[in-house]
Amino acid sequence: MLTALSLVLDLGGTFVFAVSGAVAAIKYRLDIFGVLVLSFAAGNAGGITRDVLIGAVPPAAIADWKYAAVSILAGLLVFFAYPAAERVRDDVLWCDAVGLSFFAVAGAQKALLRGLNPMMAALLGMLTGIGGGMLRDVLVTQIPMVLRADLYAMAALAGAAVVVVAPMLHVPPVAAAIAGGVLCFALRFGAIRYGWHLPTARPARVQGGTADSGRDGAAP
Amino acid sequence: MLTALSLVLDLGGTFVFAVSGAVAAIKYRLDIFGVLVLSFAAGNAGGITRDVLIGAVPPAAIADWKYAAVSILAGLLVFFAYPAAERVRDDVLWCDAVGLSFFAVAGAQKALLRGLNPMMAALLGMLTGIGGGMLRDVLVTQIPMVLRADLYAMAALAGAAVVVVAPMLHVPPVAAAIAGGVLCFALRFGAIRYGWHLPTARPARVQGGTADSGRDGAAP
Amino acid sequence: MLTALSLVLDLGGTFVFAVSGAVAAIKYRLDIFGVLVLSFAAGNAGGITRDVLIGAVPPAAIADWKYAAVSILAGLLVFFAYPAAERVRDDVLWCDAVGLSFFAVAGAQKALLRGLNPMMAALLGMLTGIGGGMLRDVLVTQIPMVLRADLYAMAALAGAAVVVVAPMLHVPPVAAAIAGGVLCFALRFGAIRYGWHLPTARPARVQGGTADSGRDGAAP
Repeated sequence: MLTALSLVLDLGGTFVFAVSGAVAAIKYRLDIFGVLVLSFAAGNAGGITRDVLIGAVPPAAIADWKYAAVSILAGLLVFFAYPAAERVRDDVLWCDAVGLSFFAVAGAQKALLRGLNPMMAALLGMLTGIGGGMLRDVLVTQIPMVLRADLYAMAALAGAAVVVVAPMLHVPPVAAAIAGGVLCFALRFGAIRYGWHLPTARPARVQGGTADSGRDGAAP
Repeated sequence: MLTALSLVLDLGGTFVFAVSGAVAAIKYRLDIFGVLVLSFAAGNAGGITRDVLIGAVPPAAIADWKYAAVSILAGLLVFFAYPAAERVRDDVLWCDAVGLSFFAVAGAQKALLRGLNPMMAALLGMLTGIGGGMLRDVLVTQIPMVLRADLYAMAALAGAAVVVVAPMLHVPPVAAAIAGGVLCFALRFGAIRYGWHLPTARPARVQGGTADSGRDGAAP
Repeated sequence: MLTALSLVLDLGGTFVFAVSGAVAAIKYRLDIFGVLVLSFAAGNAGGITRDVLIGAVPPAAIADWKYAAVSILAGLLVFFAYPAAERVRDDVLWCDAVGLSFFAVAGAQKALLRGLNPMMAALLGMLTGIGGGMLRDVLVTQIPMVLRADLYAMAALAGAAVVVVAPMLHVPPVAAAIAGGVLCFALRFGAIRYGWHLPTARPARVQGGTADSGRDGAAP
């Protein structure tokens, strides 16, 4: 039951992030094969990293063909429907928030099941959520959007924390997964719609051309 | 026999990619030690990633001093013969195609031997082939050439696929390795010499300065 | 005893590199959560990579909450004291040299304990030292300072080599750790204070805008 839930969350998150990888790949003029490679990387880097760190090798995304199939499907869909994908850009942003929620929850669950302590399970849930987007942006030489977007990594951590704390309060796993996912999505919703954000420490002096002037995070 | 073949392919690929790492390092003005570090990274990142993903730790490139020795040798050769290396730039491109063939074939074989299913073994063969070049380019902040160059990742996947399909057709491993390597090389040959390429989805609107204008993939 | 020494060195190195990650994150205008993520990445990427490569999963930095706590503490300190942190910039550079020494020594010791051969244990010590800084700079899209700064990776390798060679000469581990750390620090001291550096191979021809003109390594 819990395994089936994890698989659905994982594949759903993979699809959404693979879409974001394909959109970034097309923006940077990669050919169709490069699009598929970046789809796979964005869709699976978070989960693969988590699995390697908890010693679950080969990682699910390598051992199970379904992850690659979902990633390739997402990449092909975006490639052949690109102008349409551009038009639904804002929907992609919403999808991305859904995917982040799925991954954060599934990642924390899996880490708990492997016996990690709650604090690190929450951090691994966050890493599962943000890992794919980080690799996607690094591969197209952008500062990762997940480090810059408002409440992004923090939303993932909040969702994962709910999953981790729930067993201590005897909340059943499915309810915890739903609550964690909703919290993660709500934080991103507030950030996108209402501009919620965390404080920044302004550098003491202007950094000339060395800072990020003229560059912006890749669209999700 | 198969192990010896794998070792020769692996070390040959390592040498060639270490050369490409050293050339990139010198282009970006790293000192001799930075050149050697990038040689090792470019020569071994693909194989190390593959080994970590299939659970073969410590990875061959870490456990066996021969990989580091070959990488350092390649880095020193390039460093002390740099102007000559510049002149044989096109030969480097050919060497790179040979190295890609070696790595794709050896990577797929090793993944098969560890019991991965054929589809994922082929993908891991591709990853072995392109991983070193990806890390090399990310470290000098370029969009990886392996994602942009014509038929690059695809050639690696094609070569790996031959190795993976062969056992089903009762083709002996050595013949499969040769056939896979030749196919991979032939695809890159066609791409370099005749400009074979895959289609690109043109972005719907011009992306101003955010796209890759003014940057180009690092030379291999 | 050796384990306690390792832990102190590891946590000390983690703190210092987490500080460097936080400084880089603030320079690139990440919000407070991005600052903490980059603190953790810079403080722990080297050790995590080492542990994954030697098969010690889950890595210490994931299994033990102390590493995350130290990283978060360092990130918060820098965030709330940023202008002060800017003013002590040069001290940060010295701290970084101390952290590099700690990590190189602790990394080599841990690799030896896991039974790796001396050459690879020294290389893994170096990787432990430079891994965090490499990820930090890649995430803010800079060519890693550890590949460009004078005698940086080389100092780490020299310190690690002392730790590796010492057992062959029957030098006790604590003395070897101190000697290795002092050598590593001394090399960086000479590089920072007196400009010691290794030779560079100048590219045969000017590379136009493709080289690193106008970019510089992130401050440590």
